[in-house]
Amino acid sequence: MFDPVEKLKQFIRHQSISADSKYKDGMQGAQRFVSELLGSLGFKVEVVKTDLHPIIFAQRGSDPSWPHVVIYGHYDVQPADPLELWKTPAFEPTIIGHRIYGRGAADNKGPLMANIAAVAELIEANPQLPLRISFLIEGEEEMGSPSFPKFLETHREQLQAADFVYLSDTALPRPDQVVITCGLRGLTLFDLIVETAKGDLHSGLHGGVLHNPIQALAEIIATLHLPDGRVNVPGFYDEVLDVHPWERDELKKLGVDEKAYKDFLGIEAFYTPPGFSPAEALRFQPTLEFNGIGGGYQGEGTKTVIPSKAFAKISCRLVPNQEPDKIKKLVIDTIKARAPKDVRLSFVDQHKGDPYVVVPPDRSNTPKDQSPVLAQAFRATEVAVKEVWGKPPVYLREGGSVPIIADIKRVTGLDSIMLGLFLPEDNLHAPNEGFDLGVMKRGTETTKRILAAVAKG
Amino acid sequence: MFDPVEKLKQFIRHQSISADSKYKDGMQGAQRFVSELLGSLGFKVEVVKTDLHPIIFAQRGSDPSWPHVVIYGHYDVQPADPLELWKTPAFEPTIIGHRIYGRGAADNKGPLMANIAAVAELIEANPQLPLRISFLIEGEEEMGSPSFPKFLETHREQLQAADFVYLSDTALPRPDQVVITCGLRGLTLFDLIVETAKGDLHSGLHGGVLHNPIQALAEIIATLHLPDGRVNVPGFYDEVLDVHPWERDELKKLGVDEKAYKDFLGIEAFYTPPGFSPAEALRFQPTLEFNGIGGGYQGEGTKTVIPSKAFAKISCRLVPNQEPDKIKKLVIDTIKARAPKDVRLSFVDQHKGDPYVVVPPDRSNTPKDQSPVLAQAFRATEVAVKEVWGKPPVYLREGGSVPIIADIKRVTGLDSIMLGLFLPEDNLHAPNEGFDLGVMKRGTETTKRILAAVAKG
Repeated sequence: MFDPVEKLKQFIRHQSISADSKYKDGMQGAQRFVSELLGSLGFKVEVVKTDLHPIIFAQRGSDPSWPHVVIYGHYDVQPADPLELWKTPAFEPTIIGHRIYGRGAADNKGPLMANIAAVAELIEANPQLPLRISFLIEGEEEMGSPSFPKFLETHREQLQAADFVYLSDTALPRPDQVVITCGLRGLTLFDLIVETAKGDLHSGLHGGVLHNPIQALAEIIATLHLPDGRVNVPGFYDEVLDVHPWERDELKKLGVDEKAYKDFLGIEAFYTPPGFSPAEALRFQPTLEFNGIGGGYQGEGTKTVIPSKAFAKISCRLVPNQEPDKIKKLVIDTIKARAPKDVRLSFVDQHKGDPYVVVPPDRSNTPKDQSPVLAQAFRATEVAVKEVWGKPPVYLREGGSVPIIADIKRVTGLDSIMLGLFLPEDNLHAPNEGFDLGVMKRGTETTKRILAAVAKG
Repeated sequence: MFDPVEKLKQFIRHQSISADSKYKDGMQGAQRFVSELLGSLGFKVEVVKTDLHPIIFAQRGSDPSWPHVVIYGHYDVQPADPLELWKTPAFEPTIIGHRIYGRGAADNKGPLMANIAAVAELIEANPQLPLRISFLIEGEEEMGSPSFPKFLETHREQLQAADFVYLSDTALPRPDQVVITCGLRGLTLFDLIVETAKGDLHSGLHGGVLHNPIQALAEIIATLHLPDGRVNVPGFYDEVLDVHPWERDELKKLGVDEKAYKDFLGIEAFYTPPGFSPAEALRFQPTLEFNGIGGGYQGEGTKTVIPSKAFAKISCRLVPNQEPDKIKKLVIDTIKARAPKDVRLSFVDQHKGDPYVVVPPDRSNTPKDQSPVLAQAFRATEVAVKEVWGKPPVYLREGGSVPIIADIKRVTGLDSIMLGLFLPEDNLHAPNEGFDLGVMKRGTETTKRILAAVAKG
């Protein structure tokens, strides 16, 4: 008998912090734990070496006529610092009431274990279940999945033969409302550096004869938005996917409380492009943000210096069908065209990720060539969520980015069904991360029903 | 027989770094050295306690009918870091060719010693010299002279009875061209802080719903200048002293090589207000500069954060007759009026200093009520410089700020004659500070002739 809570406890005890080489043992322990667990369920487990942390690729079922689902997850977790803010030990799973606490409980060990439990129960009940299942569980998600694209390339053929991807690594807004994430924003990031003089200058001896790079940088930045909140870069919105009325309707079902959201953020007023509510803007509109700025003296007191350079860290969140490289070029070209002519500009390339969208079946904009198995899985999800949670899910695009989902689509053509299982109070990436065991149980039951329905065909 | 070079060596050996409490002994040593030196010349020396480093106030001559000069200087020096860049030990004076190296050689121990030597030689030659001389030598100049204004208040009456101040703590552009500094810029400084959300936010989850504080700060900063280089704050230029034609003529005598200046700065082009050459702009025009800016993530790589705040360090260099507090209020009021309404602003007050101007006699704008002794001292300076250096001095306002000069004027009514003695290659505040012994000798001779002429009446 598979005990998912006990297994989750064991999983959490492995200190699998991928970004910190001190936790090599924890990473290896977590990898072996998952590999052995899947092996014990009859999966053929391949541990695929990467430059850093291996990817677990585990398969069952080889009849090519069976439907084929790829279940994604990750066994690595965020660092646990600052440790002094934890009320229970970060790597000693502790159950208090209906919640289990520990680093990784919600991101992603709990939700992944819910899906493994669903598969375990299905196979236990029916060892001949006519469903091909491939677990694809990486160990570098919290580092930005650097090895993942290469894995996709080397396993392209095997993955292309699958029908869809299923994962639980997104959010649940409330314990009674499931969200199926149908879209993610992409992103493109770069640094802008503005330089003037050869070195820092005394503002008394030389002030008044040259353009201050902080001023020039501010003058550039200030041109990049319109007062109404839109990004002021020609062509920026050209490829933006229209919002379909059903998407706005889904959002209304969620019932966003704008006053509460404003209070949560602690802002005086929202600042969204015309025609978009805050909840819409962060899902359906691209952004151009400044993640950091620096230059000159930043300490206490004063230093009467004219700095020689200043920089800004710029990122754009992108929506379908914006292309990261194209948008970056538009923004950089605009900056070059608008920058004062007496300063020198340079740019440092940072990472990027494609946006992603999948349209559930039976919508006005559902692609005509949508995979029948994907469509069936979506319909099964609707039914399962209604039965298990008492309410149908809402189908929403989200503001965040999970570049691997778009990478999977780009390389293999596979779409993803993303069943959110972590709650706002689960403290992802923060001290006192926890996971709701009731959600875990319902998640397991939901996944079981979806996979059973897909297997049945 | 007074040996100024030997005395300067002894003076330099005292490690009188005022800003670093580890150098308490050096500060005390330098103070005692100067006090004893002046005492040995017959001065009545008062060591005036302050909160930190005492001020030496040394007087000779008590006949109120004699003219009275106050000679200003400072016995403290800048820190010597980075020590590894010094070619000779920072506090072991070393003569190489016609130059002496050591921290403080040029700022201000060498020039001060030139003036003390002049006084020593005058008194030696004529112990009855009918000239009242007060040395006013502080130990906190490199810290911004925090105790000086209080000293001025407590010694107001004694100082008001003097005729003028004489000092050598300004620059010589070339060894063959003396500059008499006739004006200094003032300044006012403050920090501007822009805040939006309660805390840093994930740019995916919340990007697109609120004003980014870096953007808002940039939007504010970008309004503060006109494209032509002028400060775009209503009323900013209202009190700016007109430039008199003789001031532009003096500058022409200096023969500024704009190409060489541009290359020295390493800039693509000058950026000066219309109607002002670079050399004019930095002397005759006020500025609004950004000395620093910061906000969000500034490290390597990226962090997709919307910061909760951003700040800029702002300073204005002021020209006569701008008032620091009035200008600061104008700028802050302008910022408040132009800032986006959805962000919160706050301001941190920093220090300030008045601008200063003194007009030599016989100019179109010389005040009708100019002190005859001051006028005589100026005329004596012209003659002495012509005789000793072979060329008359040029009379220039400078871009830097020496707030104590304006403080002296404000509190005591005294004007200053500033004979520059340090050269561009003297590396003030930098490693390998040095001082030209030929300049020192000519400086001593010049001061001697000026004081002798003033004494003669």
